[in-house]
Amino acid sequence: MTKPIYVIGHKNPDTDSICAAIAYSNLKRALGFEAQPYRAGELNKETEYVLDHFNVEHPQFLADLHTMAKDFVPEKVILVDHNELGQAVDGVEEAKIEEVIDHHRIGGITTAEPILFRNEPLGCTCTIVAKAYFEQGIDPSREMAGIMCAAILSDTVVFKSPTCTAVDRDIAAKLAEIADIDPVEFGTAMFEATSSLSGRTAAEILQTDYKEFTLGGVRIGVGQVTVMGTAGVAELKPRLLDQMENLRLDSGLQYVLLMITDLLAEATHLLVGGDEPEQIGAAFKATVEDRTIFLPGVLSRKKQVIPPLTTYFN
Amino acid sequence: MTKPIYVIGHKNPDTDSICAAIAYSNLKRALGFEAQPYRAGELNKETEYVLDHFNVEHPQFLADLHTMAKDFVPEKVILVDHNELGQAVDGVEEAKIEEVIDHHRIGGITTAEPILFRNEPLGCTCTIVAKAYFEQGIDPSREMAGIMCAAILSDTVVFKSPTCTAVDRDIAAKLAEIADIDPVEFGTAMFEATSSLSGRTAAEILQTDYKEFTLGGVRIGVGQVTVMGTAGVAELKPRLLDQMENLRLDSGLQYVLLMITDLLAEATHLLVGGDEPEQIGAAFKATVEDRTIFLPGVLSRKKQVIPPLTTYFN
Repeated sequence: MTKPIYVIGHKNPDTDSICAAIAYSNLKRALGFEAQPYRAGELNKETEYVLDHFNVEHPQFLADLHTMAKDFVPEKVILVDHNELGQAVDGVEEAKIEEVIDHHRIGGITTAEPILFRNEPLGCTCTIVAKAYFEQGIDPSREMAGIMCAAILSDTVVFKSPTCTAVDRDIAAKLAEIADIDPVEFGTAMFEATSSLSGRTAAEILQTDYKEFTLGGVRIGVGQVTVMGTAGVAELKPRLLDQMENLRLDSGLQYVLLMITDLLAEATHLLVGGDEPEQIGAAFKATVEDRTIFLPGVLSRKKQVIPPLTTYFN
Repeated sequence: MTKPIYVIGHKNPDTDSICAAIAYSNLKRALGFEAQPYRAGELNKETEYVLDHFNVEHPQFLADLHTMAKDFVPEKVILVDHNELGQAVDGVEEAKIEEVIDHHRIGGITTAEPILFRNEPLGCTCTIVAKAYFEQGIDPSREMAGIMCAAILSDTVVFKSPTCTAVDRDIAAKLAEIADIDPVEFGTAMFEATSSLSGRTAAEILQTDYKEFTLGGVRIGVGQVTVMGTAGVAELKPRLLDQMENLRLDSGLQYVLLMITDLLAEATHLLVGGDEPEQIGAAFKATVEDRTIFLPGVLSRKKQVIPPLTTYFN
């Protein structure tokens, strides 16, 4: 029996990581492969909203790829929405990476053999997955089109993020038609229903969409949470900073940052945990006040936060 | 003024590296970019044969990308037919990698920002470049179709290599029609005209298609030369082994290997330079006789030589 292919996004999955895994394994199955979507962490509120809205089954949790290989044959895995092993499910070093479908910076992966490595500078992995459907002449179902469109709306913040390209807009329009939704209406409802901080613990907020990076030898964790206005943020801040400091010490990181991205103001409040917050301020050529940097116009971790940190620490 | 984009293949370029650089910069120009092909080394006999046959200008030599950046603005570069910095033109670390178009193993590159990284497990980079033309709805000229088809015939050894896929065959057929050639006839003539070892120095033979790899911490150089029958190889061997040993010591490598690939017998005679030739024998589960390993059925460095070495040294 051939082993199935695990299709999986990054740890602390966001909507794109989950929806890309589901939609891409669906496409691989349509092409005759035995592929299954998995998740490398808890679903966040937004992703649950999306899957439930389109009546799509939640993928199974996979804690460690290595433990699956009981017969000592490496598992086959397709990484979506990430290409850095540090962000991947545990045990990935022992697996055989069959493909990578992503839209991030290139993170230093190596393989023994040539593989499909498709990284495109677009706003969302699901844009690339949808392109792959159309290139193969396979029509996505209403459900698959719906979750891919929702992922694009999530990653591009309803087309407002600087990561959003004309291709993302075109593909989202095509998918919205198949899914029979109005994209701006759906995206706004999705953010309104899921972006509030109220009723969530500091730990939940920090883990909503959290990733670790090694930039010029400095290990940094960067979380992001989106809000509609900053009501309630000031009173949450001490608990968030405590939580960030705990995580930083537990994980042996130099810095833990949290982007509180206000979609109404189109700005980010960057909370800074670490011994030298002024270093992070210098990276952004901005002042740090009370462990917070105000970054007007900043919506994208990938395009507006990681590059200045990379440049600064290199 | 915007800087032009350098489109360039690996050092010690083979026909695919040169033709992919020319054809891909041609496509980028058709799409409105200022792109220029360059070569990172001398043209080999086969590539000269191909460019002259289709009346295509030889690309300019680029010794060091860094020296071009006199204004301290990094040069923009598109890497074709390689994605390991160790195989790239000097100075690449200081350049901004804009795109990678390749068909090899993934070699550990990192970038600060998302880029187009298109690596497909196909027989030839020019197959991917031709796909990009067709995807964009741009017809390659007779000349561009000719050199791309020639590169596919070169890399797949006229469709005989295990690296050759159905996609390579289909694309080659499409290109051959545009270029008005019979692919098997052209490929056979090309190999017959250029694969003889006679009249070439040992240094020239070793450098025909030579690449360096770091596999599990071990630095290995692997050259490849194709022949039609092995007449004359035995008497050349001592000089080839001397040349390999000189190169090994000069470059501080643990091993230098030379694949003498006989297209008639569909087999490779692997010459082994280095202090422990039996290690290389063990990697191939084969015996080393007089610093030579006979490998029947082996035509591809990428698919049949690098993977066992990678596995063995890891």
